Amino acid sequence: MLRKLVPIVLAAGLALPASADEPKPTPSAAEILAAAPASDWRLLDPANTLYLDLPAGRVVIELAPAFAPNHVANIKAMAAARYFDDAFIVRAQDNYVVQWSQPDGTRPMGAAKKTLAAEFDRPIASAPPFTRLPDADTYAPETGFSDGFPVARDPAEGRVWLAHCYGMVGAGRDNDADSGGGAELYAVIGHAPRNLDRNVTLVGRVVQGIELLSVLPRGTAELGFYDKPEQRVPIRQIRLAADLPAAERLNLEVLRTDSATFSKLVEARRNRHDAWYKYASGHVDLCSIRVPTREAGPR
Amino acid sequence: MLRKLVPIVLAAGLALPASADEPKPTPSAAEILAAAPASDWRLLDPANTLYLDLPAGRVVIELAPAFAPNHVANIKAMAAARYFDDAFIVRAQDNYVVQWSQPDGTRPMGAAKKTLAAEFDRPIASAPPFTRLPDADTYAPETGFSDGFPVARDPAEGRVWLAHCYGMVGAGRDNDADSGGGAELYAVIGHAPRNLDRNVTLVGRVVQGIELLSVLPRGTAELGFYDKPEQRVPIRQIRLAADLPAAERLNLEVLRTDSATFSKLVEARRNRHDAWYKYASGHVDLCSIRVPTREAGPR
Repeated sequence: MLRKLVPIVLAAGLALPASADEPKPTPSAAEILAAAPASDWRLLDPANTLYLDLPAGRVVIELAPAFAPNHVANIKAMAAARYFDDAFIVRAQDNYVVQWSQPDGTRPMGAAKKTLAAEFDRPIASAPPFTRLPDADTYAPETGFSDGFPVARDPAEGRVWLAHCYGMVGAGRDNDADSGGGAELYAVIGHAPRNLDRNVTLVGRVVQGIELLSVLPRGTAELGFYDKPEQRVPIRQIRLAADLPAAERLNLEVLRTDSATFSKLVEARRNRHDAWYKYASGHVDLCSIRVPTREAGPR
Repeated sequence: MLRKLVPIVLAAGLALPASADEPKPTPSAAEILAAAPASDWRLLDPANTLYLDLPAGRVVIELAPAFAPNHVANIKAMAAARYFDDAFIVRAQDNYVVQWSQPDGTRPMGAAKKTLAAEFDRPIASAPPFTRLPDADTYAPETGFSDGFPVARDPAEGRVWLAHCYGMVGAGRDNDADSGGGAELYAVIGHAPRNLDRNVTLVGRVVQGIELLSVLPRGTAELGFYDKPEQRVPIRQIRLAADLPAAERLNLEVLRTDSATFSKLVEARRNRHDAWYKYASGHVDLCSIRVPTREAGPR
């Protein structure tokens, strides 16, 4: 007998149907998604979508120009200059981050700058609309989503920032706050390290393919860096989707986080009613909410 | 130039020293651990330590008899009956769990029962001493540690339960609350799925070797199960340390979570003062605290 844990998923097609003889007081995540109008989904903008191509497949990153405009522009310039061609994953630290760069650092960067002023947080007044979550957060007075990204805010300070949830992508730096620029990037592959919030410039979010990064062998040198150059994982290239011919782009849609469908999903996640759950916590934390992505199909 | 993120680690030997010319108003995690008296560490009890041996190495699990006495006794009986010899990892779902079992389910279980009454939570009055964390939690009125395990409590209800942090090990079940027993176990390998709290019997915690599980290829069938039997990852054996000759046991120590050293580590994690951090959050969530483990050396 194979005992299965019931899934905790928001992505369409992953949830198991509830058994026919159980009451279903509220719809499941799969049912909520199936009923979503097309207008609740948005196509990923090729001008803000980065493809990190590994031998094992493609990692798709949605960039966040509304939160880190200078870093995003800089990363686009690096991609256009093919700075990341034949780069490497240089670090994989368990329950923390995978990180990539050009280890020799001698490639031409095109129009990109080596370092930029930090973009750790920004004024609430200049940020995109915010969909607030109802539950308390350990780290911030308010949490929610803006334009598909997990964010935290402090209204008293008037500041908002991207939050270090699973799959978020950030720009590594030295001790100086302004020493990053996007040439060294990392993705979160563990429990959300929220104490990094407001300490690093987050630049985007992996919307597909994070499992290509999260399974990489952990480095055994300090901080999970690979001990020897031959242990590094090669990156074929990093490209902006808009810089590729249309035939080479993926056609992905992301659920709008300001949609009624998304609100219903959050509520279904706060209070589970399927046959497996015996206790509904009535709460959900920011980084336990995954924003659904799907293939849009040919167009 | 290689930009490095500064580590967020509590384990000894992993933290980089701060640069010599920076002020250090508070000691680092590594300094706090280095100053810990021997009495702040405890040896893992072989009678409550499980070894999950994979071809890639050993995963060490500390069992939690104070929270799940019947499930722990049952799992020990299964290990004694060699129930898990030649078992398999059957599931690896990204940002969620790795799960193992005997897929055919036909092995003799010795003195173990197939199913047990759920041990989801228990009275605070009968639980081990509790070291409370100062910060708010999304899911529970109180969080902290008991006997090295992350726990959450509701004093109004008078109940306490183990929390689903990274590395926690639980007993899968069917829809019936009492349908688990330990023959199907899982370990958390992603952002803490705290909505599972009080819905599954947690039985222990991986104290060493979680990275042998977290890098396993993700299954492509529903819920991350492996599609084909040949994709399953073989388990050589699962044994209680006490059932092995002393020479085959590891000699591991865990920091006592009711020690002054542990309290200092938590505080250092709430408020970072090293040269890299520009913003100290002043908070830490339960599942962002790792309990240090070290080799005790020969004795």
